[in-house]
Amino acid sequence: MSSVFDTTRRRSLPPQGVAEFKEIFGTRFVTSGAVCAHYGRDESPYPECPPDAVVFPRDADEVAQAVRLCNQYRVPIVPFGAGSSLEGHVLPIEGGITLSMTEMNQIIAVQPEDFTITVQPGVTRTQVNDALRDTGLFFPIDPGADASIGGMAATRASGTNAVRYGTMRENVVSLKVVTANGEVIRTSSRARKSSAGYDLTRLFVGSEGTLGVIVEVTLRIYPRPEAVTAAVCNFPTLADAVRSVVEIMQTGTAIARIEFMDERAVGAVNRHSRLELAETPLLLFEFHGSAGGVREQAEVVREITRDHGGSGFTWAENPEDRARLWAARHQSHFAGLQLRPGARSVATDVCVPISKLVDCVTQTVEDLKSAEFPFTIVGHVGDGNFHVQMLIDPDSRKEWQAAEAINHRLVHRAIGMEGTCSGEHGVGIHKIEFLKAEHGVAGVELMRLLKHAYDPYNIFNPGKVLAWDA
Amino acid sequence: MSSVFDTTRRRSLPPQGVAEFKEIFGTRFVTSGAVCAHYGRDESPYPECPPDAVVFPRDADEVAQAVRLCNQYRVPIVPFGAGSSLEGHVLPIEGGITLSMTEMNQIIAVQPEDFTITVQPGVTRTQVNDALRDTGLFFPIDPGADASIGGMAATRASGTNAVRYGTMRENVVSLKVVTANGEVIRTSSRARKSSAGYDLTRLFVGSEGTLGVIVEVTLRIYPRPEAVTAAVCNFPTLADAVRSVVEIMQTGTAIARIEFMDERAVGAVNRHSRLELAETPLLLFEFHGSAGGVREQAEVVREITRDHGGSGFTWAENPEDRARLWAARHQSHFAGLQLRPGARSVATDVCVPISKLVDCVTQTVEDLKSAEFPFTIVGHVGDGNFHVQMLIDPDSRKEWQAAEAINHRLVHRAIGMEGTCSGEHGVGIHKIEFLKAEHGVAGVELMRLLKHAYDPYNIFNPGKVLAWDA
Repeated sequence: MSSVFDTTRRRSLPPQGVAEFKEIFGTRFVTSGAVCAHYGRDESPYPECPPDAVVFPRDADEVAQAVRLCNQYRVPIVPFGAGSSLEGHVLPIEGGITLSMTEMNQIIAVQPEDFTITVQPGVTRTQVNDALRDTGLFFPIDPGADASIGGMAATRASGTNAVRYGTMRENVVSLKVVTANGEVIRTSSRARKSSAGYDLTRLFVGSEGTLGVIVEVTLRIYPRPEAVTAAVCNFPTLADAVRSVVEIMQTGTAIARIEFMDERAVGAVNRHSRLELAETPLLLFEFHGSAGGVREQAEVVREITRDHGGSGFTWAENPEDRARLWAARHQSHFAGLQLRPGARSVATDVCVPISKLVDCVTQTVEDLKSAEFPFTIVGHVGDGNFHVQMLIDPDSRKEWQAAEAINHRLVHRAIGMEGTCSGEHGVGIHKIEFLKAEHGVAGVELMRLLKHAYDPYNIFNPGKVLAWDA
Repeated sequence: MSSVFDTTRRRSLPPQGVAEFKEIFGTRFVTSGAVCAHYGRDESPYPECPPDAVVFPRDADEVAQAVRLCNQYRVPIVPFGAGSSLEGHVLPIEGGITLSMTEMNQIIAVQPEDFTITVQPGVTRTQVNDALRDTGLFFPIDPGADASIGGMAATRASGTNAVRYGTMRENVVSLKVVTANGEVIRTSSRARKSSAGYDLTRLFVGSEGTLGVIVEVTLRIYPRPEAVTAAVCNFPTLADAVRSVVEIMQTGTAIARIEFMDERAVGAVNRHSRLELAETPLLLFEFHGSAGGVREQAEVVREITRDHGGSGFTWAENPEDRARLWAARHQSHFAGLQLRPGARSVATDVCVPISKLVDCVTQTVEDLKSAEFPFTIVGHVGDGNFHVQMLIDPDSRKEWQAAEAINHRLVHRAIGMEGTCSGEHGVGIHKIEFLKAEHGVAGVELMRLLKHAYDPYNIFNPGKVLAWDA
């Protein structure tokens, strides 16, 4: 698999450019092999691909200086947050400079009255919630990994709470961004809504570092609910579980989380997190609200799940049990990896209209019967989004190809059902080929016009989201 | 005021182009003076500005043909929905063709299981809700006027329900758009969320017809709440009312509507809608939820408002009383107009972070003391958004200038408080000058790059949102 990247596209700084970087960044311009190797890996199945150098900026102005130099020398520049990407976003496949955001990790301001917090892009989501501890507020978006806020904004991340609180699309209030000519712009004000011109905020959210570098993020935060409870419910079949979800959504009950795990995923987290969940398809719920409100929500759910053969509806009212349950769900990626020691994970990420979810999941399970490797299925089913984790032997071209073929069929199945090739992981390298099927040639062409207008020398994370040439 | 538009910028079809339009549209290509005059007016204070011709397309393909011709002849093309714009969006100030959306008024599909509805752009919001009558679902976005869905998407409209349900930004799932070269693209799938490339949907939402023509809209819809109640509460001062709102928001109570009216606005709606509301600053609330949930919400609100001097907290549980109350609020624009027969209304539309709302409103009232014309203040205060309606003599240049000066100071006050020049009305002609103050020169330059890339001959609603040249 080491031949997947076209090395002829690599572009490097000339000695003069290196000297200029060193003058600005001193010892924070690093070319050591070990450091570059670290920044050449993420959680995707791709092989290591190190940058030429890693730079550690501390503020927007330093990022602007780095961008200006890269633009002058036509050299790629790739921001790197926590490295938790699953689709190869942060791999500098055309060489150049990686911007490590580890030193841009400051909370800039908490504005509790306005339900906003402003942070540097290297701040992680748990760091945001730590900073909010004494305010009675919290930041709900939770992709599982302790991702950086810059990375989450760049990939339009979401996760388990999105069914109630939305994704990064709905929860980024404003960004500061460095443009190709090194200017720092603010994409919008801190007002809750605006009709003042094109939505630059949503344009950069999900752009995966290909249009500019995010150097500051203002997030929307929420009052911590008065009461939180969780529940687990087992089902005879996956279809029963998914049908319950569709019906629950139709009641309009604003449940905070509705997660699906198949029996394989449950087995994996049982072993990894020492839980004793019954190994059937199950749904995990979390309810947020007033004490009375969460009881009402749970009652609705208990009734609907019973109608669909659900059993063993159990509560986790105390915070420790709840935390244990959700930690297990969050560890499911790593738990899955342990099903096959030494394996690499290929994760799929389609999202379909909820009316199509049962069909999409069941057809996918049918397709997976041919697979010779272990797999698990988990899903943010309230949103119609689910993941298959396929555990392949990294040295087996045959398994890689089989996994890719399953993914390919799954994506086209989802698009055929008016769904998307990526619910939350992003395009990166891995999904580029599917964008035309999803958006049409003319739709991708609109995206390309944008890329060419904002990044005329193709320096911003080249080779991601879309190909430079048609 | 008839000299406000630069007539040298008008561009007209050559005879050959007129012939081609007639061949495609027959009698649906109209140049009669009365029809053109109708399409040269909106609810803004600007003088009439008729197009050269009005075309009545019936589907996306006909719009594509019209756009192709306009692009070929470099002639402006301006979509027109319900004509309820307040900032001059639909005035064809550079001449050319107006696309009347009156015959593109079909509901295309209702997808209740997915909480979506797909409509042509000329469908109005009440038409959407009529189509949903038997589904148990509703479309909450409500800007007051019975605007067209295409126009609401184009201006990123919102209104009274936005505090709970968001704006058109959050509630447009997908669009079909005609691009400059006459291609029809779909901006996204019907999935609830996606990370598949640049957010073309949000790019066209709020673009005011300047990047392409919206020919189909898929909206998010919601389960109708089990219980709905409304309440009114009077306050000694405006600041007391606004402080209550800030505190209510902090409890996290998901109130559907929190509207402010000043004593002048209350007086106007009393007379217009034959109500007998006490003429003090007041807040109007609407609660959505389960029967228990709405009672809980109302209790929270009653307590907080009492702490801030609120009195006369009265309920409107029965649907007729509620409808009467909200109809009055919705009529406040027209009610205000009657305060001064023959007047024109200049409406402002700033939105600030909620922590700044008391200061912004009180400083604005102070500023308005100098005004020689009547005015009212209403606001979607849960979002930090408020409007001053200034009733000026249309023949008085002095009053127009005074109103403009107040608006100018208000906008800069809001921007200075990290707010926006437009919460929901849009930029149109009237707010162009403020975008640089809000987004910076570099931010507006990013918008201009986009406009030039998507509309190389400046045919799409030219002279709106931003100037073609820097």
